[in-house]
Amino acid sequence: MTIHPTRIDDVGERELLRRLQLRIPEAPGVPVGVGDDTALVEVPSPALVTVDSLVEDVHFRRESAPARLLGRKALAINLSDVAAMGGVGRHAIVSLCLPPDLELAWVDSLYDGLLERAAEAGVAIVGGNVSRSPGPIVIDVTLIGESRGPLLRSGATPGDLVVVTGELGAAAEGFRLLEQGARLDEGGELAAAPAWTEPLGEAVELCVWAHLDPRPPLVLAGSLAERGLAAAGMDLSDGLSSDLADMCRQSGVGALVDAMAVPVAGPVLELERLRGGDALALALHGGEDYELLMAVDPGDFEALEELARVWGVSVTPIGEFLEGPPDVRLTDADGGRELRPGGHDHFAAGEGPAE
Amino acid sequence: MTIHPTRIDDVGERELLRRLQLRIPEAPGVPVGVGDDTALVEVPSPALVTVDSLVEDVHFRRESAPARLLGRKALAINLSDVAAMGGVGRHAIVSLCLPPDLELAWVDSLYDGLLERAAEAGVAIVGGNVSRSPGPIVIDVTLIGESRGPLLRSGATPGDLVVVTGELGAAAEGFRLLEQGARLDEGGELAAAPAWTEPLGEAVELCVWAHLDPRPPLVLAGSLAERGLAAAGMDLSDGLSSDLADMCRQSGVGALVDAMAVPVAGPVLELERLRGGDALALALHGGEDYELLMAVDPGDFEALEELARVWGVSVTPIGEFLEGPPDVRLTDADGGRELRPGGHDHFAAGEGPAE
Repeated sequence: MTIHPTRIDDVGERELLRRLQLRIPEAPGVPVGVGDDTALVEVPSPALVTVDSLVEDVHFRRESAPARLLGRKALAINLSDVAAMGGVGRHAIVSLCLPPDLELAWVDSLYDGLLERAAEAGVAIVGGNVSRSPGPIVIDVTLIGESRGPLLRSGATPGDLVVVTGELGAAAEGFRLLEQGARLDEGGELAAAPAWTEPLGEAVELCVWAHLDPRPPLVLAGSLAERGLAAAGMDLSDGLSSDLADMCRQSGVGALVDAMAVPVAGPVLELERLRGGDALALALHGGEDYELLMAVDPGDFEALEELARVWGVSVTPIGEFLEGPPDVRLTDADGGRELRPGGHDHFAAGEGPAE
Repeated sequence: MTIHPTRIDDVGERELLRRLQLRIPEAPGVPVGVGDDTALVEVPSPALVTVDSLVEDVHFRRESAPARLLGRKALAINLSDVAAMGGVGRHAIVSLCLPPDLELAWVDSLYDGLLERAAEAGVAIVGGNVSRSPGPIVIDVTLIGESRGPLLRSGATPGDLVVVTGELGAAAEGFRLLEQGARLDEGGELAAAPAWTEPLGEAVELCVWAHLDPRPPLVLAGSLAERGLAAAGMDLSDGLSSDLADMCRQSGVGALVDAMAVPVAGPVLELERLRGGDALALALHGGEDYELLMAVDPGDFEALEELARVWGVSVTPIGEFLEGPPDVRLTDADGGRELRPGGHDHFAAGEGPAE
């Protein structure tokens, strides 16, 4: 018998795999699920296929990210990519690298989150792998989805509106707050916060949650693609400035953004006002918003707004696409300036989780 | 300008991704390849889906595994899984975690190997991701394949022959030799070998290659599944003793293996004779053979043998499946004994690359 808390190396790789496999529910259209050399799955064709990873000390820290929320997020960031192509996630494959001294309870919580988020999104987990890691935890999810579009990054044309869903900057603020010591307790309530945020506990909690449990507008995305209400789309993961630059490059157009129109998240405005910081910069460059960035024909905007209202999502025009080189300009109270990609780059970042 | 050799953090994540994307050829049936939020791919349905990882200091060491061969192997181990289900690989998604100080030339070589192996197998690389790693290199490949079977682990019945392809033990011996200092030069020739192996340079080279560049019997696997010549199948990755135990467990049968019939690889016999070691143990427990383990109806064996001959693969009956509890027994010159799963377990292993 082992002494509690049980660690992965107490039970071994095969037993861990079997334990996880037992938790994965059978799903329709999956004649062979986990447990054989491969899964056998009835997939949509053409299929959307994507992969994204969460790496310890790059995307999260073990001490500040509850395992259950990491499980949710590992799936959510892939659901966001599929949604941004105008599709709906269907089948997920989970590959984990885990240090041998990790507690089994941590892996169980991670799977709680994965399974819960999968159920919410109607996704079946159909395969997986577990490897030993000599250091960091790596959570790699591949997602197969059904196309309702596709909604490409390259479809923007001059005259289209630059439109974003939701509000921006909260996830980046949340990441900063976690690095400064903000913590959730097991029930998801704020258990600790940096001293300077004292009067704004609720704002801190909202930002931390935005970082740990992103909620991309999945249903809206599939629905608008079906109706052809966007000419181009992608998800905001690296930060508006970087992502819009990429859409411009892939579409061969420029863009002009009105700084006053950018929907900065309320809690970020409150916190940055208190701190004397720059809320707009977080919304422009912060990253991990997992909202949609779209090019929308002005004639379609009203229909898009109506559809978004049905799904409880806000859509905001923040500028327009222009003829010319693939540059982004920002107009603000001081006039105009070039908006250079300022999102995170994991390799350039050098140290700590990137935003 | 940066000073050579260029490292990943000299160019940054986006530039690295763009660089890799430029190298991936367009493929038929892939309307949207790499570079958007997801790929859009015409996939077979039902599809075989699997994922497997190579983790630095668990599955390989950077100083002894040439990057090009790692690229080949990362794909090969997944091709082996798809083959073992009686299928053929079609689309691969590559997720890399790379330390920022890694040389760009290393990543280029890795992709040389991936693209080369993909071309050999008729596989299109349709997506990928690159993350920063705070430590080890992690190469994660998800493979989607076309089913010709499926060939499950659970199909063995009492009376079926236990059959393996190829010869066993060379990859495990090769791993040991690499740990003892064996090295290939850039041209793939043996450049260094442990002193004790001195008279057996060719055997060392064969074993090292078996470990670094596994060649699963892909075509035979798809072909025999189509013809229904095996009742159950899986690939030998963890070692015969572990894998056969799993097939027995999933099929609800026992098995009796004749030690004298196990096809131990010639170079392993030579090396272990010289060293005074146990060649059979390597063949039974070593792992990473990436050969096929099958349950074959005795009435089908002749047809299987004929088909295998066409594809230049040897097939060897090494025992039979029996009624009873899912245990494996081994008969040898000393009589009979229980063959307990002795393959590697990454978590139990504790230190160094697992075999």
